Amino acid sequence: MRLGLDIGGTKIDAVAVADDGARSPRPVHRVRLPSGFGTDEVLDNAVEAARRLSALTGVPLGRLASVGVGVPGVVDATTGRVGHAVNLGLVDTALGDELARRLGVPVRVENDVNAAALGAWHAMSLQGSIAYLNLGTGLAAGLVLDGQVRRGAHGAAGEIGHVPVDPAGAWCACGQRGCLETVASGSAAARLWPTTALHPARALLDAAADGDHLAVQARRTLVDGVAQAVRLLALTVDVQTIVVGGGMSALGDELMGPVREALAHQAAASSFIASLDLASRLVLLPAGLPAAAVGAAMAGAQADLVPVATLS
Amino acid sequence: MRLGLDIGGTKIDAVAVADDGARSPRPVHRVRLPSGFGTDEVLDNAVEAARRLSALTGVPLGRLASVGVGVPGVVDATTGRVGHAVNLGLVDTALGDELARRLGVPVRVENDVNAAALGAWHAMSLQGSIAYLNLGTGLAAGLVLDGQVRRGAHGAAGEIGHVPVDPAGAWCACGQRGCLETVASGSAAARLWPTTALHPARALLDAAADGDHLAVQARRTLVDGVAQAVRLLALTVDVQTIVVGGGMSALGDELMGPVREALAHQAAASSFIASLDLASRLVLLPAGLPAAAVGAAMAGAQADLVPVATLS
Repeated sequence: MRLGLDIGGTKIDAVAVADDGARSPRPVHRVRLPSGFGTDEVLDNAVEAARRLSALTGVPLGRLASVGVGVPGVVDATTGRVGHAVNLGLVDTALGDELARRLGVPVRVENDVNAAALGAWHAMSLQGSIAYLNLGTGLAAGLVLDGQVRRGAHGAAGEIGHVPVDPAGAWCACGQRGCLETVASGSAAARLWPTTALHPARALLDAAADGDHLAVQARRTLVDGVAQAVRLLALTVDVQTIVVGGGMSALGDELMGPVREALAHQAAASSFIASLDLASRLVLLPAGLPAAAVGAAMAGAQADLVPVATLS
Repeated sequence: MRLGLDIGGTKIDAVAVADDGARSPRPVHRVRLPSGFGTDEVLDNAVEAARRLSALTGVPLGRLASVGVGVPGVVDATTGRVGHAVNLGLVDTALGDELARRLGVPVRVENDVNAAALGAWHAMSLQGSIAYLNLGTGLAAGLVLDGQVRRGAHGAAGEIGHVPVDPAGAWCACGQRGCLETVASGSAAARLWPTTALHPARALLDAAADGDHLAVQARRTLVDGVAQAVRLLALTVDVQTIVVGGGMSALGDELMGPVREALAHQAAASSFIASLDLASRLVLLPAGLPAAAVGAAMAGAQADLVPVATLS
């Protein structure tokens, strides 16, 4: 039995996974708790989530195979240290060591987008290599190549949100101009369609569906941006499948339909792009699938990972 | 003993490599012949190159471990078929099968840029994952991740030349607009600096060095384009080392100096980009190193490759 904790900006989404060597591991229990803020609260809540899952499964903490944690931020997966997780108030935190000490279980820490990529690969029983395209407030991709998470030499693999794609584009918080994130993300939707609505991308699509001319233009920019992210992944890592997840994936076919149209439009203009068959490689993460939590659990099983924290 | 044949648009550059399991295999003999044009000529010349190397090494053809071939075009490395190699006049050619039949040796066929990437990784004894950035007439990268060539699901891994980076950019032969190749390649240099000179990029750099105002501007566009290719590789596959090769690499520090300055400029504008330490990850392919031929030879040793052609 492995536990996976997706520690997000507001809540911890935690699952217990029966890892019996099957291609698609089964999440058998699920628990959700507030994340809290700052090292102490986050650690306390993570420990509490693990204890509850342990109780639900009847497997004592010390008998668990591993606990995996997904965190939104800069993570060193080999040491379990979190450099920065701004939304959680973690700065240079030995999260892996601390959790392992308090739980008595080996802990692996993974960036949450990488964890979601691994979780999608497992839970959706995908073949070949995949990218998980996280359309959240920001834009990033997680890569699973040949069954292994690719983090990259500087932990920047899949950071496509900060690839500049328009020299005349909007300034990005990263200091560059025209980053892909400025046209393909929740924050892009908010910039393109200023609103007080809680979900700017939803408000934008609704207004476009109502025929608002400016909203139709803004939707075009957003949709083209997402299509560009798909093409970028095909022309760099060339994964078999691109799984769209993150907050914006809740828009479902209202978003994916136009994105597929934009990809078809690209293909019509270029036989080279047409040969890549992009639209057929795009799938939506199934609603309700806790990909990051499942992936965090399965990160504990990755053979190439050094156990980041053991009992001291 | 393994042979590697880099079959280019004009010449075959062929090496015999003593593959004694060392990290950096030694090319022991080298032969160059014209490539010819069309299936018959190319096959005849490839066979002749292999025969000459066999004679030079004293190892009969039938006792060779493998013959690897690098070809500029669309290649199916698992079957050894060449879909298109326009400059060689090859269209849907069973190059692997034909060569194996005529040489009596298992043959592996690889795209030439992928072969060069593998050759650079071996011959330069590079650590970790690398990209070989081929700045030729066009722009493409070869990827060696964890010691294995990454071809991708559609053979498009590393095809960064056709990532659009400027919606207002020049039209590309691929049918898209503002592709990276239109600002970072030999053909980009020729477009930016129209000339009758044999080497437009050389002519452009010379004019810029002489202080020609328009040439300085054109150099800036070209150099920024190359820097953008480097950043793109870091933010997608995040390889440890980026090796610059191809025809434009002959410009040496005259090109690399300004590219490093452009990377430093990017880093100054963005602490995120600065953290990627791009300039220090950039190296030039050593002049005279037959990377594609060495890589073609070592492609025959890759454990994950199905032998594409055996004796029939």
